Amino acid sequence: MSSVPVPPPKCLLKPMVVPFRHMFGPGPSNVPPRILQAGANPVIGHMHPEIFEIMNDIKSGIQYMFQTQNRVTLAVSGTGHTAMECAIFNAVEPGEGVLTAVNGIWGERAADMAERIGGFLTNEEIEQALAKHRPALFFLAHGESSTGVLHPLDGIGQLCHKYNCLFLVDSVASMGGAPLHMDQQGIDILYTGSQKVLNAPPGTAPISFSERACQKIFNRRTKPVSFFLDLKWLSNYWGCDGKPSRVYHHTGPVTAFYSLRESLAVLVEEGLEKSWERHKEVAEYFHTSLESMGLHLFVKEKKARLPTVTTIVAPTGYDWKDITSYIMKTHNIEISGGLGPSVGLVLRVGLMGCNSSKAHVDMLLAALKDALKHCHENKL
Amino acid sequence: MSSVPVPPPKCLLKPMVVPFRHMFGPGPSNVPPRILQAGANPVIGHMHPEIFEIMNDIKSGIQYMFQTQNRVTLAVSGTGHTAMECAIFNAVEPGEGVLTAVNGIWGERAADMAERIGGFLTNEEIEQALAKHRPALFFLAHGESSTGVLHPLDGIGQLCHKYNCLFLVDSVASMGGAPLHMDQQGIDILYTGSQKVLNAPPGTAPISFSERACQKIFNRRTKPVSFFLDLKWLSNYWGCDGKPSRVYHHTGPVTAFYSLRESLAVLVEEGLEKSWERHKEVAEYFHTSLESMGLHLFVKEKKARLPTVTTIVAPTGYDWKDITSYIMKTHNIEISGGLGPSVGLVLRVGLMGCNSSKAHVDMLLAALKDALKHCHENKL
Repeated sequence: MSSVPVPPPKCLLKPMVVPFRHMFGPGPSNVPPRILQAGANPVIGHMHPEIFEIMNDIKSGIQYMFQTQNRVTLAVSGTGHTAMECAIFNAVEPGEGVLTAVNGIWGERAADMAERIGGFLTNEEIEQALAKHRPALFFLAHGESSTGVLHPLDGIGQLCHKYNCLFLVDSVASMGGAPLHMDQQGIDILYTGSQKVLNAPPGTAPISFSERACQKIFNRRTKPVSFFLDLKWLSNYWGCDGKPSRVYHHTGPVTAFYSLRESLAVLVEEGLEKSWERHKEVAEYFHTSLESMGLHLFVKEKKARLPTVTTIVAPTGYDWKDITSYIMKTHNIEISGGLGPSVGLVLRVGLMGCNSSKAHVDMLLAALKDALKHCHENKL
Repeated sequence: MSSVPVPPPKCLLKPMVVPFRHMFGPGPSNVPPRILQAGANPVIGHMHPEIFEIMNDIKSGIQYMFQTQNRVTLAVSGTGHTAMECAIFNAVEPGEGVLTAVNGIWGERAADMAERIGGFLTNEEIEQALAKHRPALFFLAHGESSTGVLHPLDGIGQLCHKYNCLFLVDSVASMGGAPLHMDQQGIDILYTGSQKVLNAPPGTAPISFSERACQKIFNRRTKPVSFFLDLKWLSNYWGCDGKPSRVYHHTGPVTAFYSLRESLAVLVEEGLEKSWERHKEVAEYFHTSLESMGLHLFVKEKKARLPTVTTIVAPTGYDWKDITSYIMKTHNIEISGGLGPSVGLVLRVGLMGCNSSKAHVDMLLAALKDALKHCHENKL
């Protein structure tokens, strides 16, 4: 018997303790018991016919949620970041340009570009940039959870195509909570995450590619840098390439697929339009209530407000960290501060999927009022 | 209300059906109820103190399992392939060479190199190749699940270091089931998956980096191609870089972390050496029984046999697919055919973690005997 110089860690002999929290930050959101329990089904093989059926159901659910007929529609085995890399790695070849609409951290992260926050671009600005830079890909975050902005999408796909450019949209924070029509809006690549409106655990990321995107990707001169995210392999594994059999690519996270399927079933049961309407109504109720409390919304223009993630101007006379800590400690509720360019400027509240209800708004408003009573800065 | 031209899919209105299977293929393995249920705990934030504690427990568990003191030890949010890419993307800069020991599909996939199966390399062969090619990284699969070979590791790390090369080991199929001492054996980067001996669902991949590897990686001239797998970010997120606070990198798959922690707790409770011994004993019992049935093992040399995944020479007079199908249909047991270079040549049986017991061997032998009775080829 070989010796083990590194002894067994005692911490693992203690039971794991996971508290319940109201997850009203920008994500992950709460996961309802039926979705958690779906993920606790037994593991089957990543190549068994039953998992292919579940994957086919997921494809159908994503096509519905994205409002697309794209055959290359699947879920990446990873979080939203993985989907972002899947999009960029596959769609761009060395030497080609990517143009990024930098309206918050997600735009920033996609390109390491300079900051520009709290607003959105006009289609005229976008066209000027397309004409000037002639990129292969134009990236836009539909819902910028760092700033709370919902970017309009109409007409941009058509502009991109005029300049022979693919239109890539990040809808991680908005999908299912705000109207989006992938095919009608000429979006070439669209992705989201599982842990926001869908209310599934983080770990899978729905993504879809238009025929135009596939034409480019499947005729690349070079291989994408990532084997794991190579769309030729992924689309075969997901049965999107019309080939009679699927070849082993990677061991799919089957239990995460179970949860994702269940979360899509919940969306289908409610209906996409009803989900959009509900998020809108609840957000408006929330925003009006905040303003009547004397708080200010970071996004001034009403129609530019993301219905899923609200940014509140950090109230003066308070350290925002005191507010978030107090609400967590006293009310067991997570809300968060800013991210990237909005750090220190805002409080961020996410009400997504099952959390988007007036009852949850009322719970949160009570907690906020309580925090504002108790967290005054007395440092002068 | 916006219209939705793509209607809701009816398939998602049906309940999901997941059968129970005995998962005796090369992975994923069965997941015990306590690990499945751990994964059904409520979702908390990926930056909450409780998840950092769970991640710290995971780190300690991986250090024990890998037998390493490396501070940069963590779990990648993805499957074994993601960990493979994490290792290569971080450790290799453009223009540097990777030398791959091709003894099966895992070696093959790491480098798209020519085939060479069913055996292993001598340290003399490895030294010759290191001296000739002067690679920055040498890749070796400890457990080649495509061929059933356990590759010896002693002395190779030292050879690599003599030639100023990092030693990268894939232990996806072997970890926890066969002795390995990362520090003693001079392994610079080591990774495994969650779904084999650990018996957790697929979706997380333990990985560790030696100080020598970190020296190279943290002093790169260029950024790694993947932001998601950039070790600078990952090691901060996992609290490995000594910095006082962790910065948001990606939304960790927290429920997958719960399951991974629970699976490491099971390993700690049994003890690593006992787990190695059990897998060895059960494999020897299995191999002897197979030979007494008149079947032949694909790996002739006893000490080169992987204790977790056994390759059986596909018996003559049978189509191997008839055997695997029959066993699945009649006995609800998954075993599999070959993979990559071993397709058509072998049957592959995995007995990993909780499935490594004599009772499971007996169950499987009965199924195999039954299949051999019923699946004779009558095509002449």
